[in-house]
Amino acid sequence: MPSYSIGVDLGGTNLRAAAVSERGVIFETISGRTAIQEGPAAVVADMVASIEELRRRMQGQTLAGVGIGVPGFIRLETGIIARWGNAPAFNGYPIRDQIEQMLGYKVILENDANAAALGEKWVGAGQNVNDLVLLTLGTGIGGGIISGGRILHGFLGMAGEIGHLTISPNGNPCGCGNNGCLEKHASATAIAAMGRLLNLGQGLTSRDVYQLAVEGSDRARAVFRTMGEALGIALASLVNIFNFPLYLLSGGPLPAWEFFAPAMLREVERRSLTYRTAPTRIEPAKLGSEAGLYGAAYLPFQSVSGSSGAGTL
Amino acid sequence: MPSYSIGVDLGGTNLRAAAVSERGVIFETISGRTAIQEGPAAVVADMVASIEELRRRMQGQTLAGVGIGVPGFIRLETGIIARWGNAPAFNGYPIRDQIEQMLGYKVILENDANAAALGEKWVGAGQNVNDLVLLTLGTGIGGGIISGGRILHGFLGMAGEIGHLTISPNGNPCGCGNNGCLEKHASATAIAAMGRLLNLGQGLTSRDVYQLAVEGSDRARAVFRTMGEALGIALASLVNIFNFPLYLLSGGPLPAWEFFAPAMLREVERRSLTYRTAPTRIEPAKLGSEAGLYGAAYLPFQSVSGSSGAGTL
Repeated sequence: MPSYSIGVDLGGTNLRAAAVSERGVIFETISGRTAIQEGPAAVVADMVASIEELRRRMQGQTLAGVGIGVPGFIRLETGIIARWGNAPAFNGYPIRDQIEQMLGYKVILENDANAAALGEKWVGAGQNVNDLVLLTLGTGIGGGIISGGRILHGFLGMAGEIGHLTISPNGNPCGCGNNGCLEKHASATAIAAMGRLLNLGQGLTSRDVYQLAVEGSDRARAVFRTMGEALGIALASLVNIFNFPLYLLSGGPLPAWEFFAPAMLREVERRSLTYRTAPTRIEPAKLGSEAGLYGAAYLPFQSVSGSSGAGTL
Repeated sequence: MPSYSIGVDLGGTNLRAAAVSERGVIFETISGRTAIQEGPAAVVADMVASIEELRRRMQGQTLAGVGIGVPGFIRLETGIIARWGNAPAFNGYPIRDQIEQMLGYKVILENDANAAALGEKWVGAGQNVNDLVLLTLGTGIGGGIISGGRILHGFLGMAGEIGHLTISPNGNPCGCGNNGCLEKHASATAIAAMGRLLNLGQGLTSRDVYQLAVEGSDRARAVFRTMGEALGIALASLVNIFNFPLYLLSGGPLPAWEFFAPAMLREVERRSLTYRTAPTRIEPAKLGSEAGLYGAAYLPFQSVSGSSGAGTL
């Protein structure tokens, strides 16, 4: 009898869950708004209800396990959300214990960017490689590192904070205490902020800046060139550190690829001898916002077949 | 019968080889000058002669294998030195094939910084961890990454080029084509160059700058503060990327630890939320110039017991 897993993707806006086959086929999905305003208990109740509803729909089939991708700094060993910037009520919340108590069985918790990287490796742009880095450009910049086919966690599960790579030591200040973090120069938020600095409009979003670039605005295009250069500085360092075959980008600003990628690749080319020596690919990810859901669903399968590290089941 | 391995450490100045037990005890050593001026064939002949002499001395014992650490960019899959900055005659030289032809059996080739990192993990400062990064400060800055107990190679064996992490996008120019490479701001060479910029003396070495700092020179101490800040910027990014428990420094400038470490740690503290959250150690390595020799000797043992990646035997 074919088994399935359940993946849950907890986002700041949407909560999604899916029942997925071992080969990456989605059987059933549930999605809704994340009830952030109602607090952690309400959100956990919604997650548990989604999982139970999917189990009901999949009745008669074998559940391999439940994987859950959550945003923010996760303490993997304790299953606690240490810091979720957009939802401070969750800071310090023992989300894994709460979910497991209500369900009555264990789940696998993972950082959402790590889950997205794993999803791209499983059924997305990284299917043919064992090593990749994924950068997700959003409010901040998340990172997921797949090394030898598995998520690189570091000793507390906090690896992959690529958004906080210093790309300019006296650059824009960041909430983390640093100056010049990549995400303050290349996230969707940074794109919007640069657009406002250039007086492109009030209350501007990164999408608006993109629209202006499409319409031919030189200043909007300059924003994307600057953002591309920042990404290129970080990617050059990542290429020099990892010598992985594949680096993927995803997130809201991806449609602006034509406006930022040339400057980005020029920087990488200039700044990385490794890039000029080894056939390294820097490409858009394929699964978009589905990557985290797929990756969460893959966690239970990997935990069974794999040898180390990723699983907490 | 106890088995032993042979480790060879090919340096720009010295060529060393040792017969080492499975528990990291050195039985026999051979060392001499590296005959760089006489070209690759002469150097390989010396390496092979050292290996054969060690085998003769260890007669009756079982040789587990030969590991060889070599400087520069190594193409692991082909066993070729792609680029050795200090010895251009070796660029493109198929060193592994040449050695194997003369010996009549296989050897394991490794980048010297990777070998040093593995040595520190085996019998040095990293014995109690499975994940560490080693930075070796010399003419340039080499890097070795141990992840899950094994060397992280990347897909062509070129991972760990930490000396070419960009710490300042418009910083000092580097031979690799980049500006602001870590090694142009924090290597022994960079320390000497900064000393000369500050008119501390002509033909100055990093050791001279250290001596002046010991004697109380404010300018010499400023050099080490600047160098420490550069290291701190890079280390903060590494901590954010890897969340490893241990980062080690080795090389000629290490005696100046008291002059550069405070500035270095201050930068890491400010620039890395992960460092402030997780108990991360940044420490001097323990084996000094012996690390690469130990690491090279460990390669055959790891290749036998391990499961993936590092070995080419």
